[in-house]
Amino acid sequence: MPNHSILILPGDGIGPEVMAEVRKVINWFATHRNLSFDVTEDLVGGAAYDAHGKPLSDETMAHAQAVDAVLLGAVGGPKYDDLDFSLKPERGLLRLRKEMDLFANLRPAQCFDALAGFSSLKPEIVSGLDIMIVRELTSGIYFGEPRGIHDDGDGGRVGINTQRYTTEEIRRVARAAFDLARKRDNRVCSMEKANVMESGILWREEVSWVHEHEYPDVALTHMYADAGAMQLVRNPKQFDVIVTDNLFGDLLSDAAAMLTGSLGMLPSASLGAIARNGLPKALYEPVHGSAPDIAGQGKANPIACILSFAMALRYSFDLGAEADLVEGAVEAVLARGLRTADLLGEDGTEPVTTSEMGDAIVAAL
Amino acid sequence: MPNHSILILPGDGIGPEVMAEVRKVINWFATHRNLSFDVTEDLVGGAAYDAHGKPLSDETMAHAQAVDAVLLGAVGGPKYDDLDFSLKPERGLLRLRKEMDLFANLRPAQCFDALAGFSSLKPEIVSGLDIMIVRELTSGIYFGEPRGIHDDGDGGRVGINTQRYTTEEIRRVARAAFDLARKRDNRVCSMEKANVMESGILWREEVSWVHEHEYPDVALTHMYADAGAMQLVRNPKQFDVIVTDNLFGDLLSDAAAMLTGSLGMLPSASLGAIARNGLPKALYEPVHGSAPDIAGQGKANPIACILSFAMALRYSFDLGAEADLVEGAVEAVLARGLRTADLLGEDGTEPVTTSEMGDAIVAAL
Ligand SMILES: CC(C)[C@H](C(=O)O)[C@@H](O)C(=O)O
Ligand SMILES: CC(C)[C@H](C(=O)O)[C@@H](O)C(=O)O
Repeated sequence: MPNHSILILPGDGIGPEVMAEVRKVINWFATHRNLSFDVTEDLVGGAAYDAHGKPLSDETMAHAQAVDAVLLGAVGGPKYDDLDFSLKPERGLLRLRKEMDLFANLRPAQCFDALAGFSSLKPEIVSGLDIMIVRELTSGIYFGEPRGIHDDGDGGRVGINTQRYTTEEIRRVARAAFDLARKRDNRVCSMEKANVMESGILWREEVSWVHEHEYPDVALTHMYADAGAMQLVRNPKQFDVIVTDNLFGDLLSDAAAMLTGSLGMLPSASLGAIARNGLPKALYEPVHGSAPDIAGQGKANPIACILSFAMALRYSFDLGAEADLVEGAVEAVLARGLRTADLLGEDGTEPVTTSEMGDAIVAAL
Repeated sequence: MPNHSILILPGDGIGPEVMAEVRKVINWFATHRNLSFDVTEDLVGGAAYDAHGKPLSDETMAHAQAVDAVLLGAVGGPKYDDLDFSLKPERGLLRLRKEMDLFANLRPAQCFDALAGFSSLKPEIVSGLDIMIVRELTSGIYFGEPRGIHDDGDGGRVGINTQRYTTEEIRRVARAAFDLARKRDNRVCSMEKANVMESGILWREEVSWVHEHEYPDVALTHMYADAGAMQLVRNPKQFDVIVTDNLFGDLLSDAAAMLTGSLGMLPSASLGAIARNGLPKALYEPVHGSAPDIAGQGKANPIACILSFAMALRYSFDLGAEADLVEGAVEAVLARGLRTADLLGEDGTEPVTTSEMGDAIVAAL
């Protein structure tokens, strides 16, 4: 039995299409590198709701806990907009993150040279951009209690959510950020609203503690999250690694991703604690969403999902050379001018389909 | 006694310098238009802490409640970084917002034609940009209880803040947004995280309620705040009025402001309920901060603060024509090529000082 087990959860919208291309890459490794993965597939999000009446079944959850890596496509769609909160497609993804304890969400925002023109920012502001955002993913206002909506007894209602962070939750994600920085430009910028929120003060103090006691060699700065949003727009290349909480990370990493102009290119990894095999629990997914408007039309760009698999090779299977191979194939294909519909300029190039792009990447391997 | 009373709170950093230029504009109206304002001045932020040991004295608070409009420069600075949370300069500003009940923070993000080149975004993405962000300013996670940092009894600590919104808090700021939209392009986009937060669900439902029952003529759309951050970067001109909560508004309005490339140009108004005189309680302040690094050097751009006074003319004194006059003078001066240091390109223009810019605007009146 191969010891590389992968659970594929294509999910909704364009998820299944882009995942089909990842399958081709996985098959290539089996055929040409004798690297066989034990791949199984299951449902998440709206697709799981349609089949089981909930966005993630207990069986799928148990299965995700048992494999080495989970690859997820995307969840959500207008069809599920009116579902009860607890049944929404997003709850399936959030349950995976929480129960697998995937506390460190790595979101690289990298600008591909061949695609710098797609950014809404000036080329000189974004060319060569290479930021890593480390977002805390299992705590904060996403999961804090008390939460809910109740009547105020006076004819109105009250909606409540709780931002809650502990010392250990902050320290462990800070360590993930410092570790990454050491392999990059050795700089971490931590973002919060310590001028307004006590949870932000604790965040700043605990990140500083980890820095002082464990990573004094890494350069650490602090920035208020609103200033961070500004600086990402003004001069994003000033950053190396950014570490921030779950909610700020949600907005800031999306803004950072959009700076690159090519959302269809960006992968992400969500990592948990190191398990017995020496590797972290992990889930990999493209940064883009389920894009229901173009689903099923062969227009989706499979690269973000294929690069998410490359991250899996690197972080879950310790196959750095193989990850480089996949990333190199993507670059080669882009350099040859192949573009899916999302990457088309005004020069009249014909777009390739999702599946043609996948085939080209496999051929380039 | 004139019935136009203004309290000036210059605050910290460049606050006093830019406010001195506003004084010149106020004096011009007294001399040339027989419009005399009853102007008094007081301390806020670090300046108030230095004098009284707290960032806003009870006397100043009472005074702010009594006047028709408050003009604030900026608060904060590194000198106060180590102060206890309750003594930080920001608490002075937050107390004003809360006790004056200034629930609607209007933040226009407008791109001045003469300055479009300063944006980090491509000119075609931002030229002609004219968004109005309406941020809820007196509730949400900024003020919700419980809050604080406590020991977890196990050697660690826990930091807590509470996001809390009521039906009425959401409805009143929604009304402010719809009213503004009617005077503009009649479109409102409401942003929250209803896919993750119950307070976001309530937000969406109450905004929709107000729309359906009171403003069916205005076009309303909803967007998740992370998608909103993306769309502001990708294609900001798609928006007319954006309405969002206190914390999302903090990040999104700063990102939107930075799109214009000229932060030193952007004013803001924080409005409360309509008082007996038919006008709202109000505080006006530039979007930029206290910029301690350039304070006292005559480098600051006074335009944002002068335009904040123009907003006061419009919203607090119902002097729309006079507001137009001030805005026109600013445009005329920019068209003539006058630039403070923050607005310098690479063409070798000599910058004018803060005070020269103020004088030029007064001359243009
Ligand atoms: C789909 C949604 C629940 C999710 C989030 O808010 O975390 C998404 O926006 C993301 O960033 O992965
Ligand atoms: C100074 C600070 C308290 C304030 C805020 O967070 O609201 C500022 O960032 C703003 O946006 O006016």
